[in-house]
Amino acid sequence: MADEVILLDFWPSMFGMRTRIALEEKNVKFDYREQDLWNKSPILLEMNPVHKKIPVLIHNGNPVCESLIQIEYIDEVWPSKTPLLPSDPYQRAQAKFWGDFIDKKVYASARLIWGAKGEEHEAGKKEFIEILKTLESELGDKTYFGGETFGYVDIALIGFYSWFEAYEKFGSFSIEAECPKLIAWGKRCVERESVAKSLPDSEKIIKFVPELRKKLGIEIE
Amino acid sequence: MADEVILLDFWPSMFGMRTRIALEEKNVKFDYREQDLWNKSPILLEMNPVHKKIPVLIHNGNPVCESLIQIEYIDEVWPSKTPLLPSDPYQRAQAKFWGDFIDKKVYASARLIWGAKGEEHEAGKKEFIEILKTLESELGDKTYFGGETFGYVDIALIGFYSWFEAYEKFGSFSIEAECPKLIAWGKRCVERESVAKSLPDSEKIIKFVPELRKKLGIEIE
Repeated sequence: MADEVILLDFWPSMFGMRTRIALEEKNVKFDYREQDLWNKSPILLEMNPVHKKIPVLIHNGNPVCESLIQIEYIDEVWPSKTPLLPSDPYQRAQAKFWGDFIDKKVYASARLIWGAKGEEHEAGKKEFIEILKTLESELGDKTYFGGETFGYVDIALIGFYSWFEAYEKFGSFSIEAECPKLIAWGKRCVERESVAKSLPDSEKIIKFVPELRKKLGIEIE
Repeated sequence: MADEVILLDFWPSMFGMRTRIALEEKNVKFDYREQDLWNKSPILLEMNPVHKKIPVLIHNGNPVCESLIQIEYIDEVWPSKTPLLPSDPYQRAQAKFWGDFIDKKVYASARLIWGAKGEEHEAGKKEFIEILKTLESELGDKTYFGGETFGYVDIALIGFYSWFEAYEKFGSFSIEAECPKLIAWGKRCVERESVAKSLPDSEKIIKFVPELRKKLGIEIE
């Protein structure tokens, strides 16, 4: 039986980008279904009744939710080709630690850059830069977070890279000035076909931010 | 070489309890080192420099942080005896989904029951009960969350059970009246030696709450 793989997603989602990249890395063909998050489809509500969020990976009718769990699932179901997680238990635990760190820290602070003003905006910016510096220090002089091979932690973080220009524009700062190695890493990652195919243009995201603010009822200017 | 396993932990931590239980399930001997979270030890700061939080599992000198990651690590390093996660990728993904749900939802709402007053306290109580009902509905009529075998999701949740009497006392409500199946599940779990050895007495936790409020500067009464 051929695998039926459906991805419920929303184009600017850095979480959805993870799953797109993981599927591309494994050469898995999938049916991408764009979702309207302000008018949720019956399939989204049925497939992720608990969180009602994208991305949802539906494999032969069975839903898998949460993007980091989806990467692990994809790695386990399609183990041939590039492994995304290391096989050594300790290295695996380290990769998961950084994936979890990105999930707990990056989104919340980044959101304040485009979605808050005044003190909250400044605090978000400061925290975001500190978090990126922690990640840059973990990256060090390695090619990718796992060493020579593109994998799980790179996939967990690279979606945010497509938002970097938007953060810089709305935060009036330069990420490259703060974290040059992280920017060099991002440039290496987007040279991969899986990433290039899965990340939207930075310009498109910059144009999307005012629309997003409006939908969320956030008044900045 | 014999394994050297050290656990940096704090007795009332439902996260630390997870790691204790997972180690007990695998019959791994470990050196339990109680930590003072208000005066952090050099070893804690060295072994978890990013979050500076317990529990930290140190295996032959290498630290593993974050309790759910520790359970997976323990399951991978000591694969014999009881497996904690299912071997099927889809069932594994489902177990991780519920572990993640517990991490994202239970602690934050539960904390408001003993650590907030007025509207915030009421909102926390309401959300906590809703979350428990979602978990109870996932449990259904199964013996454990994974079916007939005690495992990952049970370990992720059971530490909170030792706090249930404290939540009931400080929230003036009955969890059993709301979620009888979940209480029956908790009673089944504490019959296991690994759980009985790892969970503190409910009475001790009730007595600890005023002390914790004081340390955190929370004024309720």
